[in-house]
Amino acid sequence: MTGTTGTSGTDRACERFRSVRSRTEALAAPLGPEDQVVQSMPDCSPTKWHRAHTTWFFEEFVLGPHAGAAPYDPAFRFLFNSYYEAVGPRQPRPRRGMITRPTVDEVAAYRRAVDEGVEALLDKGDPPPEVVDLVELGCHHEEQHQELLLMDAKHLLAQNPLRPAYAAPADAPEGAVAAGDAGAAPVDWVKHPGGIVEVGHGGEGFAYDNEGPRHETLLQPFSLADRLVTEGEWAAFVDDGGYHRPDLWLSDGWYAVQDGGWEAPLYWERADTGPSGWSVFTLGGLRPLSPSAPVRHISYYEADAFARWAGCRLPTEHEWEAVSPDRSAGAGAAWEWTGSAYLPYPGFRPAAGAVGEYNGKFMSGQHVLRGASCATPPGHSRPTYRNFFPPGARWAFSGLRLAS
Amino acid sequence: MTGTTGTSGTDRACERFRSVRSRTEALAAPLGPEDQVVQSMPDCSPTKWHRAHTTWFFEEFVLGPHAGAAPYDPAFRFLFNSYYEAVGPRQPRPRRGMITRPTVDEVAAYRRAVDEGVEALLDKGDPPPEVVDLVELGCHHEEQHQELLLMDAKHLLAQNPLRPAYAAPADAPEGAVAAGDAGAAPVDWVKHPGGIVEVGHGGEGFAYDNEGPRHETLLQPFSLADRLVTEGEWAAFVDDGGYHRPDLWLSDGWYAVQDGGWEAPLYWERADTGPSGWSVFTLGGLRPLSPSAPVRHISYYEADAFARWAGCRLPTEHEWEAVSPDRSAGAGAAWEWTGSAYLPYPGFRPAAGAVGEYNGKFMSGQHVLRGASCATPPGHSRPTYRNFFPPGARWAFSGLRLAS
Amino acid sequence: MTGTTGTSGTDRACERFRSVRSRTEALAAPLGPEDQVVQSMPDCSPTKWHRAHTTWFFEEFVLGPHAGAAPYDPAFRFLFNSYYEAVGPRQPRPRRGMITRPTVDEVAAYRRAVDEGVEALLDKGDPPPEVVDLVELGCHHEEQHQELLLMDAKHLLAQNPLRPAYAAPADAPEGAVAAGDAGAAPVDWVKHPGGIVEVGHGGEGFAYDNEGPRHETLLQPFSLADRLVTEGEWAAFVDDGGYHRPDLWLSDGWYAVQDGGWEAPLYWERADTGPSGWSVFTLGGLRPLSPSAPVRHISYYEADAFARWAGCRLPTEHEWEAVSPDRSAGAGAAWEWTGSAYLPYPGFRPAAGAVGEYNGKFMSGQHVLRGASCATPPGHSRPTYRNFFPPGARWAFSGLRLAS
Amino acid sequence: MTGTTGTSGTDRACERFRSVRSRTEALAAPLGPEDQVVQSMPDCSPTKWHRAHTTWFFEEFVLGPHAGAAPYDPAFRFLFNSYYEAVGPRQPRPRRGMITRPTVDEVAAYRRAVDEGVEALLDKGDPPPEVVDLVELGCHHEEQHQELLLMDAKHLLAQNPLRPAYAAPADAPEGAVAAGDAGAAPVDWVKHPGGIVEVGHGGEGFAYDNEGPRHETLLQPFSLADRLVTEGEWAAFVDDGGYHRPDLWLSDGWYAVQDGGWEAPLYWERADTGPSGWSVFTLGGLRPLSPSAPVRHISYYEADAFARWAGCRLPTEHEWEAVSPDRSAGAGAAWEWTGSAYLPYPGFRPAAGAVGEYNGKFMSGQHVLRGASCATPPGHSRPTYRNFFPPGARWAFSGLRLAS
Repeated sequence: MTGTTGTSGTDRACERFRSVRSRTEALAAPLGPEDQVVQSMPDCSPTKWHRAHTTWFFEEFVLGPHAGAAPYDPAFRFLFNSYYEAVGPRQPRPRRGMITRPTVDEVAAYRRAVDEGVEALLDKGDPPPEVVDLVELGCHHEEQHQELLLMDAKHLLAQNPLRPAYAAPADAPEGAVAAGDAGAAPVDWVKHPGGIVEVGHGGEGFAYDNEGPRHETLLQPFSLADRLVTEGEWAAFVDDGGYHRPDLWLSDGWYAVQDGGWEAPLYWERADTGPSGWSVFTLGGLRPLSPSAPVRHISYYEADAFARWAGCRLPTEHEWEAVSPDRSAGAGAAWEWTGSAYLPYPGFRPAAGAVGEYNGKFMSGQHVLRGASCATPPGHSRPTYRNFFPPGARWAFSGLRLAS
Repeated sequence: MTGTTGTSGTDRACERFRSVRSRTEALAAPLGPEDQVVQSMPDCSPTKWHRAHTTWFFEEFVLGPHAGAAPYDPAFRFLFNSYYEAVGPRQPRPRRGMITRPTVDEVAAYRRAVDEGVEALLDKGDPPPEVVDLVELGCHHEEQHQELLLMDAKHLLAQNPLRPAYAAPADAPEGAVAAGDAGAAPVDWVKHPGGIVEVGHGGEGFAYDNEGPRHETLLQPFSLADRLVTEGEWAAFVDDGGYHRPDLWLSDGWYAVQDGGWEAPLYWERADTGPSGWSVFTLGGLRPLSPSAPVRHISYYEADAFARWAGCRLPTEHEWEAVSPDRSAGAGAAWEWTGSAYLPYPGFRPAAGAVGEYNGKFMSGQHVLRGASCATPPGHSRPTYRNFFPPGARWAFSGLRLAS
Repeated sequence: MTGTTGTSGTDRACERFRSVRSRTEALAAPLGPEDQVVQSMPDCSPTKWHRAHTTWFFEEFVLGPHAGAAPYDPAFRFLFNSYYEAVGPRQPRPRRGMITRPTVDEVAAYRRAVDEGVEALLDKGDPPPEVVDLVELGCHHEEQHQELLLMDAKHLLAQNPLRPAYAAPADAPEGAVAAGDAGAAPVDWVKHPGGIVEVGHGGEGFAYDNEGPRHETLLQPFSLADRLVTEGEWAAFVDDGGYHRPDLWLSDGWYAVQDGGWEAPLYWERADTGPSGWSVFTLGGLRPLSPSAPVRHISYYEADAFARWAGCRLPTEHEWEAVSPDRSAGAGAAWEWTGSAYLPYPGFRPAAGAVGEYNGKFMSGQHVLRGASCATPPGHSRPTYRNFFPPGARWAFSGLRLAS
Repeated sequence: MTGTTGTSGTDRACERFRSVRSRTEALAAPLGPEDQVVQSMPDCSPTKWHRAHTTWFFEEFVLGPHAGAAPYDPAFRFLFNSYYEAVGPRQPRPRRGMITRPTVDEVAAYRRAVDEGVEALLDKGDPPPEVVDLVELGCHHEEQHQELLLMDAKHLLAQNPLRPAYAAPADAPEGAVAAGDAGAAPVDWVKHPGGIVEVGHGGEGFAYDNEGPRHETLLQPFSLADRLVTEGEWAAFVDDGGYHRPDLWLSDGWYAVQDGGWEAPLYWERADTGPSGWSVFTLGGLRPLSPSAPVRHISYYEADAFARWAGCRLPTEHEWEAVSPDRSAGAGAAWEWTGSAYLPYPGFRPAAGAVGEYNGKFMSGQHVLRGASCATPPGHSRPTYRNFFPPGARWAFSGLRLAS
């Protein structure tokens, strides 16, 4: 949350706000009221909750303190707070799916009311910079929830034996499969000489607090693959007994394999037909395995085991940042697990107040992912961006790139 | 499921079918799509599921075998089977709430299609008696689900911190509270001399298989209270430390008290205002404790502990049946826990085929409740009717009547 | 615990006390300190705990109130109370195995000290009848724990991959296997005409409170097998897919089969050698399946499913009592599951004070077993004796006899 | 496990072997057979198991491959393997406490037999260097288990309401409390200028594989406290509501506080007497809080929250190593949590074969601790030593030192 919109101007802020807010509504549109209210596991949230919580964020941190607005509904403060202890008690996370009311329509009305409030505040000529910054933070926050909305909707639809699609294959985030896919070209390795490099966010433009301070770090020489691991390569790992060889796995990972009965990435299903023997569930429905598509929905444990099987390793987050793979070259299809634990940078200070809970308090037990995924809003990510998930999580659009 | 509709005639069967089916739709009407899809605990089912499952019952047992009808949707056989092993695999009970599609509207269309099929079959002049009997069974089955629909909707709404009402108090099954309620009149005791009595269903008219065979049993002399225990009496039990005295409780019951943190019946909440200090959540919303209202939503363990506290005991199911309390005298407000385990009668034989799984396979670990509740469809129950729940269940409309 | 030893005389009481107490020590003797301290599951208790708890019973109910004795060690009141809420808080049952001290030797010393106290009290010429009665109750209590000690030791030893034996086969409670066992003779059926019979304990001699009051009950005509179901017959049930056919099982039983991965009775193991393909673990170690031996270590669910498979049913406890199978004819090899829930008899009143917790508070969720087992102390059981376990319990020496 | 004993000579190896082996036996001596067999939680192992497993290590990795010895008992390979997948299946960790046989005496005999075998091998004039290295590794392995033995024994004794002591206070690892303890002197800060430093093991002498390769890293300037946080300081944290302020805690830590009901470090108990209001359980029994003693038995979450409360932070493992606090100045009383996740060093390669599972496969989800504790064998640790535990673990002798 460091950074400021600087001279960006109110108009641009307002336009950006409107654009982000309407993108959320567009993402929710293919989902009916039934789809929007169910919570498929404690880590997931209903679509309706995402729509309301992102709205609550603007109400709590912008309209309340800076517009003196009375709450839209006092109960929403409890219902739609996510994890801000400083704000007060809240609906327990695993029970977000119990809240069938307010209805989807009532949440839409809530969104419109808060939109009007924020727009009025921004239109009031020269809003204070902290308001502009908080609106900017709220927009980035909402963009994160846009990706979560897709992750969670995919997880929910996958629980249904009918395997319903969220969108037509061509319109789904994962995209349609190319016909006659013969697999990806061999990996080229980008070499880096090591040495002292600067990492972390330090310049203009928005960044989260966890991306700073910018600081020097010392790298050993290394090489980084020029593309992500593919579904075809992953199928070879499966065929080689990858999920049945404890020597390839971290101890906790091997336990996760046993406990979860893992045999393949999440959303892979054995298929009777097709050359690969696998179907992959996407937001566009079930499709055959696509040899050249980047593999998605793997845990850190799986990424680590695959890398060991391939005689490689995962890059550290700073190796990744030093190379900053070019998004035009296929990066951005899946978040990339790194070998780095999610920990504070030297000199890290969380933002003051409740928004200080945004990132810092999650700095244990997780690993950093870099890049972006097919479900990440365009422009949302940065080379210094630090995404993070627990090592066993699989419902994110997560893949891997090899290092050595 | 023994019994037959005898000479009842097709017209009456068809009228009854229509009436039962439309009553389900009327009960679901106050609930929006969001309310109809969420499952609040593994014992509960979504409203939408109840609407679909009762329809599946007619399709599976009537239309399939007797009208040669192709399935409306082959997937529904899996999605909406409840527990019939003989029919095949099914959506696991605790995951009924994951099925956001088919939507509520699609389920309504499914109902209409099956209605047309059944009505056509019944209209076809002289349908075979087994069809008439199966339709009758399906109607009774659906009436049971009407009560479950209300139980489950109440449980779901109670999870919402907003405590939304299903209906206006006067229209809710529990009814509105009388102003100035001074509590119930003292109990009168109905004395029974004991001796050999006949119990169980044996005559004309519909009954479930578990109500027979009719047989003789030997009773000791006993007395039965002429009314149910009230909320006011229960509050006295609470005030006397009833939930904190292990000597009053069965061992399993005491464990349930500790484990569940029970301090009062389900749906009772401490209230800052009002003479009783309690609010009670009903399908009409939160209302103050009503001293003369029959207590509801207690487990067998609680009923047993209350009876011990009162120096009485619970009646056995056959004591209850020998007296058959008059519904006009307040019976029918809540199912009445009996001290009898739910076990087969001497000579019990379940019906042949899949419908034989209806009752018999649940004959362990449960207690019999007699009577009917405010949520039971009118005319659904009988003096020989055996309802049953596990001893820790509280979400049914269950109360108690004392014996000694 | 009703009944009194009447004019039995102090000498006999003292002799009986000594005999029971020394039998416990003899049963513990084959077990080393390591074997005596470990708790293999929450339902089981360490041998050392049984030895101490039975001693505590005499101290708490006899020496404390009737000899004015100071406690041997005040901490033991907490450590060795089992479930008597009226006595006070206690070591949680699932954590009895955490108590490595007092040591086995210290518990032996505790036993000797309490023995001396009780014997001194009995020797004091004309002890009050309530003392004599309580000592008698304590002896029966200890005999129950003698059987539990063997059940629990067997369960513990079975957890060890080495499958160590408690005793030589010929000395083990289950006895050695006859060579060339060709299976049991066909069942003969004992017919009973039904009618009003008297059941329950009413006469002279000791009985637990749950065996009374004696009262009349009405039976339908029935037949009872003249012997228990055998291991050979059970193997036929297994071979016929008994554990894979849901139509044979109660719903809760079928869940237990799935959840527990049951494929055979507890302590049966697939064996590579031998005609039956099964080994059976006994206190005498692993032995081949013995076709004529009564099957043991089955749950109520399994007994019920077997009976259904055999076209029969389980007897009720009063049918069993009306016939009272002759112990000389093979009865007494295993407790016999009945179809009766464990509930109070009409007019049941638990004993006053803490010993009233002995039986009554367990009257929910269990089934009655009748007879006795190979691990029951000689003379301990009676035709009116009501043993009870939850329907899923398998570690008791439990078998079945068919009725129809 | 890199490194070699070099020219150390067989005599010295044999002497070292004997000394380590007999120290284990001395540590076990105060524990009776009952104490040695019980497992108090899945993370702990029985004393007997530690004694047997360390012996198995020598048998499996030294005697088997290098002396061609037949196994002492083939079953021990299963019973006493800890986590070496490459060796084969093993007794599940949470069930190590079920193995009451072999008895404590039989394990002692096993130890003697393997001791003879190893000594014979070492005595045979010029044993191959890999044997000497493996014996050295086995000695270090056994020293780790000596500390675990004390950790696990302490945890077990603490479950006993009698709170029995392992040894007299003066002989217990934590030592006796000084009378009139007025608390520790104020902290002095050791300043470090930052810059490139070398870390990791690289020279002569034994080290585990996870301590290398030695490599350069870049530090920012920092300060490190010259002593550990004390019990007195921790009591101030508790008094200031430290366990009730979510703003001080990582999110996972706050969950652990709620879930575990944490109010103080493990083994602290509220005491009615004494100025501090706390008793602390040690291997010497319960003693009053000692203001100047280093706090022990805290989780990473607690260390992190305390540091935040104190306006400081935890050091990284390489900051710690760059300063290498002097053991004579109080270091070595407790392992010191660092802010570093336990991850491989650049270029890390685990040892070949089964011993490669020693360290590497645990490199996820844990934090590094540096230093040594009062329970660490003298000479066992090094400045490059990397101990590790999950962030919620509290049963280790773990404390903290502040950085800023």
